Amino acid sequence: MKRAYNFNAGPSALPLAVLERAQKELLNFQQTGMSVMELSHRSKEYDAVHERAEMLLRKLMNIPDTHDVLFLQGGASLQFSMVPMNLLKEGEVGNYVLTDSWSDKAMKEAKKVGATHVAASSKEEQYTYIPTNIELSERPAYLHITSNNTIVGTQWREFPNVSVDLIADMSSDILSRDIDVSRFALIYAGAQKNLGPSGVTVVIIRKDLLAKGDDRLPTMLNYRTYSESRSLYNTPPTFAIYMLSLVLEWVEEQGGVQAIEKKNAEKAAILYRCIDESEGFYKGHAKKESRSHMNVTFTLPNEELTKKFLAEAKEKGLIGLAGHRSVGGCRASIYNAVDIEACEALVQFMDTFRKNIF
Amino acid sequence: MKRAYNFNAGPSALPLAVLERAQKELLNFQQTGMSVMELSHRSKEYDAVHERAEMLLRKLMNIPDTHDVLFLQGGASLQFSMVPMNLLKEGEVGNYVLTDSWSDKAMKEAKKVGATHVAASSKEEQYTYIPTNIELSERPAYLHITSNNTIVGTQWREFPNVSVDLIADMSSDILSRDIDVSRFALIYAGAQKNLGPSGVTVVIIRKDLLAKGDDRLPTMLNYRTYSESRSLYNTPPTFAIYMLSLVLEWVEEQGGVQAIEKKNAEKAAILYRCIDESEGFYKGHAKKESRSHMNVTFTLPNEELTKKFLAEAKEKGLIGLAGHRSVGGCRASIYNAVDIEACEALVQFMDTFRKNIF
Repeated sequence: MKRAYNFNAGPSALPLAVLERAQKELLNFQQTGMSVMELSHRSKEYDAVHERAEMLLRKLMNIPDTHDVLFLQGGASLQFSMVPMNLLKEGEVGNYVLTDSWSDKAMKEAKKVGATHVAASSKEEQYTYIPTNIELSERPAYLHITSNNTIVGTQWREFPNVSVDLIADMSSDILSRDIDVSRFALIYAGAQKNLGPSGVTVVIIRKDLLAKGDDRLPTMLNYRTYSESRSLYNTPPTFAIYMLSLVLEWVEEQGGVQAIEKKNAEKAAILYRCIDESEGFYKGHAKKESRSHMNVTFTLPNEELTKKFLAEAKEKGLIGLAGHRSVGGCRASIYNAVDIEACEALVQFMDTFRKNIF
Repeated sequence: MKRAYNFNAGPSALPLAVLERAQKELLNFQQTGMSVMELSHRSKEYDAVHERAEMLLRKLMNIPDTHDVLFLQGGASLQFSMVPMNLLKEGEVGNYVLTDSWSDKAMKEAKKVGATHVAASSKEEQYTYIPTNIELSERPAYLHITSNNTIVGTQWREFPNVSVDLIADMSSDILSRDIDVSRFALIYAGAQKNLGPSGVTVVIIRKDLLAKGDDRLPTMLNYRTYSESRSLYNTPPTFAIYMLSLVLEWVEEQGGVQAIEKKNAEKAAILYRCIDESEGFYKGHAKKESRSHMNVTFTLPNEELTKKFLAEAKEKGLIGLAGHRSVGGCRASIYNAVDIEACEALVQFMDTFRKNIF
């Protein structure tokens, strides 16, 4: 069976080399006579995996010693609550930039904890761009942004310069480009786009913020629990963290984040060029200056053509191109593990499809 | 490489047939051209996996229609908080039976939410037995028990007959024996002992209790969120749920829970017989009437011998026999996937070791 061209929005494509390695050692991890899934999380063999994942992430993202790396569960959705539970104190205001329904959800969870403020929003224009006119509230606890917006296909090309702690949901573009971690107070990301399979969430937190977590918080919802135990307070999702370590090794083999970033820019350029040169047949959803290098969103002239497009694409092994159920249209998610060949195959299909219609 | 005899307390042994199947289809799940890890959680292929896991668990445990089956993350440790956050209301008291440090931790988390009461405890005798003299508080919200205690090696052989909602942490013996689910208001279990790899938590909840969850709870900590979305509110840990579905298929092939229960009783009998016939060389930690069929805990005459025992066992491929760091000694965890052959190999080693010493 030919491998599918996987444009899923997440869970999404994983590097073939990573899957092959996982397959090869699935029954016998490093001559232990057992699967990595069967190792005790207190064993030295698993500990080395756990440590390697952290070490590689630190190295690849150039994470400074001022920041801790934590492995959690529950996805970004649980972080929507953990961020304010740990960092939004009485009398303070959680500031949010609304760039799609994920940031909206993040703010809704914060409202259950304390005061919130919309610092900027592009909601009135269907979130088609990244708003940069940020107006902070009084006594802001932090400014929360979503670095890449999977549903609408926008991405912060430059991060806002603010004097307040900057928090970013980077679920869909972590490790896809070089960023300066020291500018962020906290970064969180579900793994299932650029880091590995679903089931593990990475949190990068500036250490001084750990003191803000109240002891009355549920133990599993206090960042300090993870920091003090190296994310081994209870049984972590060991297989997901193992897969993360393999994906990180793969990124390193690709030449690191800068090489990956360059490739991602090329991939995005291939797709956007096809859209822009389609004489209006394909319309990009996001405004040009806010276009995402991870999720390329576009529409066809009508719903009937969209359906036909998706059905024929699927027949050709181009999978996962339907837009998010909340907006419709089409979306090609081209995370790190999606290679240029897949983008070229998609563009070829898009061109042929358009010419057959006209 | 020979497969290890895996007595890990969790994560623990998985059935070889399950690992082989996962390995075989790791690169190409059901002719999709991708790994099960790469499937969208909204795809029909993943949905069938998700549904099958629920269906099989319902069938194997004979779960009545009055109860929902939910898939969560965060392990039993997060349930320690979610149970009281959802079910312990002002003016009510969470009742706990203390049978080892896990139940102790469960009660500590409940204390952050509301009032608690120790309904019974064997703490004063190092948790060596299951206390049955239960005294409920006034206005009890529920009675919480830990059905099997991995650290000390005790297990509820008969569940308490109480007029209040019964909640059980069954992390270490779910699916190991036939139980009457209708007697429980809520059952929760981390998967990493009898159900699959770490990273997914099963919750079985009586549906009327879902109404108790307050809308002000964080969305991800409200059981209703999972019930209303079939545990697909956000991206679930898809690979862990896939592995769960394979383990459940394996249990069915073994003849279901009753056949598994019979085998588990045999396995436990083999080990306890070896301990009881060792003329005091091996001492069982738990009192006989409370002995666990899942975790067989025992000590040797002194620490030096214990170290020697563990080192020689490891050389012979008998892995994971050290007792929990909080109590020391030895522990053989013999969950569903540990076969009789492994228990016989252990007993043979134990007998030889003893005879070589005397």
